Amino acid sequence: MEPASAARVSRRRLLGGVAGLGLINAAGIGLAGCATQSASAAQDTVPFYGAHQAGITTDIQDRLAFAAFDVTTTRREDLQALLKTWTAAAEAMTRGAMVPGDSHANEMPPADTGEAVGLSPARLTITVGFGPSLFDGRFGLAPRRPAALTELPALPHETLDPARCGGDIGIQACANDPQVAFHAVRNLARLGRGTVVTRWTQLGFGRTSSTGATQETPRNLMGFKDGTRNIRSDDAAALDKHVWVGTEAGQDWMRGGSYLVARRIRMFVETWDRDRLSDQEAVFGRAKYTGAPLSGKTESDNPDFTAKTADGQLTIPEDAHIRLAAFENNNGLRILRRGYSFTDGTDARTGTLDAGLFFISFQKDPAQFITLQRKLGTQDALNEYILHVGSALFACPQGVPDASRYWGHALVEG
Amino acid sequence: MEPASAARVSRRRLLGGVAGLGLINAAGIGLAGCATQSASAAQDTVPFYGAHQAGITTDIQDRLAFAAFDVTTTRREDLQALLKTWTAAAEAMTRGAMVPGDSHANEMPPADTGEAVGLSPARLTITVGFGPSLFDGRFGLAPRRPAALTELPALPHETLDPARCGGDIGIQACANDPQVAFHAVRNLARLGRGTVVTRWTQLGFGRTSSTGATQETPRNLMGFKDGTRNIRSDDAAALDKHVWVGTEAGQDWMRGGSYLVARRIRMFVETWDRDRLSDQEAVFGRAKYTGAPLSGKTESDNPDFTAKTADGQLTIPEDAHIRLAAFENNNGLRILRRGYSFTDGTDARTGTLDAGLFFISFQKDPAQFITLQRKLGTQDALNEYILHVGSALFACPQGVPDASRYWGHALVEG
Repeated sequence: MEPASAARVSRRRLLGGVAGLGLINAAGIGLAGCATQSASAAQDTVPFYGAHQAGITTDIQDRLAFAAFDVTTTRREDLQALLKTWTAAAEAMTRGAMVPGDSHANEMPPADTGEAVGLSPARLTITVGFGPSLFDGRFGLAPRRPAALTELPALPHETLDPARCGGDIGIQACANDPQVAFHAVRNLARLGRGTVVTRWTQLGFGRTSSTGATQETPRNLMGFKDGTRNIRSDDAAALDKHVWVGTEAGQDWMRGGSYLVARRIRMFVETWDRDRLSDQEAVFGRAKYTGAPLSGKTESDNPDFTAKTADGQLTIPEDAHIRLAAFENNNGLRILRRGYSFTDGTDARTGTLDAGLFFISFQKDPAQFITLQRKLGTQDALNEYILHVGSALFACPQGVPDASRYWGHALVEG
Repeated sequence: MEPASAARVSRRRLLGGVAGLGLINAAGIGLAGCATQSASAAQDTVPFYGAHQAGITTDIQDRLAFAAFDVTTTRREDLQALLKTWTAAAEAMTRGAMVPGDSHANEMPPADTGEAVGLSPARLTITVGFGPSLFDGRFGLAPRRPAALTELPALPHETLDPARCGGDIGIQACANDPQVAFHAVRNLARLGRGTVVTRWTQLGFGRTSSTGATQETPRNLMGFKDGTRNIRSDDAAALDKHVWVGTEAGQDWMRGGSYLVARRIRMFVETWDRDRLSDQEAVFGRAKYTGAPLSGKTESDNPDFTAKTADGQLTIPEDAHIRLAAFENNNGLRILRRGYSFTDGTDARTGTLDAGLFFISFQKDPAQFITLQRKLGTQDALNEYILHVGSALFACPQGVPDASRYWGHALVEG
């Protein structure tokens, strides 16, 4: 494994160097082209260092590659070395640079696998989290386990596949290019060989091709806009209140961090597609095409949960998804959602599409999700069309301030 | 099912109408925004009608959704109705319109599933092909089976999973947005309910984020540029010679069509990543970063297969992939490749990544692929790192000239 200080070869510099030698001028890329690339690279880069990890409040990118790993070593030093190496590699990749180390020596395997060479950083973020299982006896970390970090309890309306649950460490890689996101996870898995094994992975996608002047709310695979009332990334007060762990947690390494809940939610799209429009809208409590709450006219209208129809029925039904999930009806409780659609081929048993939502939420305490899901899992009209089949919880530590520190530094050092 | 003449609601017109009613002006989308959308929509549209089907020589889009279906009816009329309905839906979706039919009646399931509302057409193409199995006794099509359309023979270096092979009908949907590509396949599957069942599906991705002035050749998951010497889409002579079926085929419905071979090629990326750079380059016969043949300096250099090193060895080794595949070494034989990378999570048996290349090639006769693969499958140095695990062959009929005809019209009519 390579130390953090190893030479970092920029993917862009590599290509620039080649152009300087005249090797790809034949392909029509001149100096003007390179200048454009650099400007674009800067625009396409999300800073890695900071008080918080990137990839939590970062405006959502188009693609997800998620991987859960189990640690196979029992030595704390191996875990430290892994996190150091991973941090240096993640920082490099988010800049559009190759994985630190030598990728050009003929007699060695390249340090970087190479499939992202020539690609933009594509707003890549890589976010790490630690599962409850990491705090068992193996590394002496039990005293540093936050009280909030325990395995999620059994929840209503879930049929979990153990092969899609849990993990000692979770990595969320998001980028506007699937090859860049996959490259990140693959190279971290490779750097971890001998220290971690991959437990499960999940790819996801969001909207890419909206051509509107403003960012439109993406639609989920049920055809409804999803995320209208999400916490906004510029709402610092709400983030502090609901997402970022503060001083109350009692574990320094989690201050400025957040808890990531991942749920693989299968949608029974074939059944959904047979439901009539008015019922689909009643299930969500919103109009399908405009995204407006049934009590309002535009997507941004606040739902009026007291509104009634002419015949005295609630306009937004009792069991509508947005009524049950709304902070107004949950003592102000909110979570930051950051999920992606998935389609993983066909379910071999039923011939139906294995598609749905890879739900990701960030919150300062997993109890926020648990409270909400206990309610939704029993009352939500949506339950007829969905099932939670995978689940994981990861404590995402505070951000890495600079190159002198690494992911989980305060957790695994000292 | 809806006839081809059913009302077609443009996704864009729908939104335009909503804006006109002032419903989403609150979200900041004014008329200027709509004008931008229309310009972009035109730019993002690949014409559906033509002498050839789109999606064959169309410049490759970023995303693939492929589905193979088996027909469950045995009545020719059902097959005709399906192809009519599918053609109308495909034509609409490639324009960015919703699936024909009513998506706004409250008391009916919407004709379109809705998740592409508000998205650009994203250069969507939908290409249909018929498998050899469609020409068995069920529909009386045996006399119209071209001699070239038989199941692929057993080929060297394959371990095929029957669940990833074959199919009566294949649908290739390509777009620059995965949600648009998935939406297309999902809606065709839905329209086919009762007539077809999904046999297998495959998602794929290519490069998206290259910021260079020229289109750079995409890299495969081994980190090498892939497609450097492919047939160019503007090389009409080569396309006529190698890709488009001419009058020699003896089946009118295939004139202007092409044969699609799909091979799911698993890459053992973990093993590959342990190989040293010089060996990786010897396997392909190209330099990893520049893409230049080992005998040359730039990617566009023609390989010199006679070149020797100072110590008398072939510069491009005997078993290098590009030597074995080159038309110069195969009596001028060429195929048009149009493959996509895939990553489908983790192989549960081995814990390794289930990743690789979903190889698609078009040729005027499947014998072109068979000849090439018999050679590559036995001699290619790449075989140490790959395995063919899925396989299918589809005869893609000639294009649909206008709304009076449909996919396979000349095959299933009369």
